[in-house]
Amino acid sequence: MQRDTPFKIGAVLFPGFELLDLYGPLEMFGLLRGEVAITMLAEQVGEVASNQGPKGVADKSLLEAGFYDLVLVPGGSGTRKEVGNTVLLAGLKARAAEAAYFASVCTGSALLARAGLLDGRRATSNKRAFDWVCSQGPRVKWIRKARWVADGPVFTSSGVSAGMDMALAIIETVFGGERSEEIARQAEYCWNRDPGEDPFAS
Amino acid sequence: MQRDTPFKIGAVLFPGFELLDLYGPLEMFGLLRGEVAITMLAEQVGEVASNQGPKGVADKSLLEAGFYDLVLVPGGSGTRKEVGNTVLLAGLKARAAEAAYFASVCTGSALLARAGLLDGRRATSNKRAFDWVCSQGPRVKWIRKARWVADGPVFTSSGVSAGMDMALAIIETVFGGERSEEIARQAEYCWNRDPGEDPFAS
Repeated sequence: MQRDTPFKIGAVLFPGFELLDLYGPLEMFGLLRGEVAITMLAEQVGEVASNQGPKGVADKSLLEAGFYDLVLVPGGSGTRKEVGNTVLLAGLKARAAEAAYFASVCTGSALLARAGLLDGRRATSNKRAFDWVCSQGPRVKWIRKARWVADGPVFTSSGVSAGMDMALAIIETVFGGERSEEIARQAEYCWNRDPGEDPFAS
Repeated sequence: MQRDTPFKIGAVLFPGFELLDLYGPLEMFGLLRGEVAITMLAEQVGEVASNQGPKGVADKSLLEAGFYDLVLVPGGSGTRKEVGNTVLLAGLKARAAEAAYFASVCTGSALLARAGLLDGRRATSNKRAFDWVCSQGPRVKWIRKARWVADGPVFTSSGVSAGMDMALAIIETVFGGERSEEIARQAEYCWNRDPGEDPFAS
């Protein structure tokens, strides 16, 4: 499928974000080449340190108006603090409300839940932090065994590496399955294409 | 296995580096928690844009003396230009010469080859750029079918996602197989543990 305009992704940074949660999906989306435009968002413009140390750079504030086809939220140890950050949550809510799709990886679903974005929806998260994540969204239909969950325009994945499988599923939804398959081959990635296939659930 | 001091990783940035080549392995190493210290290196300190757009930040110059247990070099479209960058290659050579291990992902092996670091050694690279990479190191024993290749202290992987399998193999070499398995589980990553298992070679 061809689009007239680039697929705009707003990818969210916060202190203590998990590297692969963010850059795994962005690798896959980046392989759409000229058909994608990635903007890095955070509470404030500038450098943001990951959970592992290496820093990312926010181009734009999450609080600033802007349309994104997809808002992508990683997890990481930083989510434990950020679930109480009302400014970040308000920014997430505003950007996700305008977006065509929004998605989280790992404990990023705790942030979406606290922003009220998952109420009444099916969603999943990291398996080792599952009970904590569930406690952040009592009105969410949490699904423990899933590589990722798609509920309308909302995609949530299990821990870390699962974000890449979910990203390919989003690409399939928007650009078609042949494109997703080709991107997985370019990345030399063995795509787990079945959202119900979750070897880490038990 | 326990170490007395952190396992020091120097991870190299250059314009047009591939996101997952770098951050996939750093995710796995980062899960060693307090036992690892990651320093981001580039020709100059500061922000460096990836092939996909998002920027990384170099903490220290690659030209500055410093011991690293492992020097990690990603690939990406930027390697096409950087194979002619004698300053970067000299920095790589100096840091790798002092390191206990050095490793590349994808077309990063073209940079190691041009720095003379792979002469006489077995190595691999991205499958879609294989002929170009081979041309950068005529004295290298290039191996086309391999998820990754270990030759003494030198590890080279196939394209993009293969870097994560290689990183887990380096962790196995240094910290033991139980630790690697535990980290793969934490990252909810299906580790391709067999270096000869390469579904993308043909």
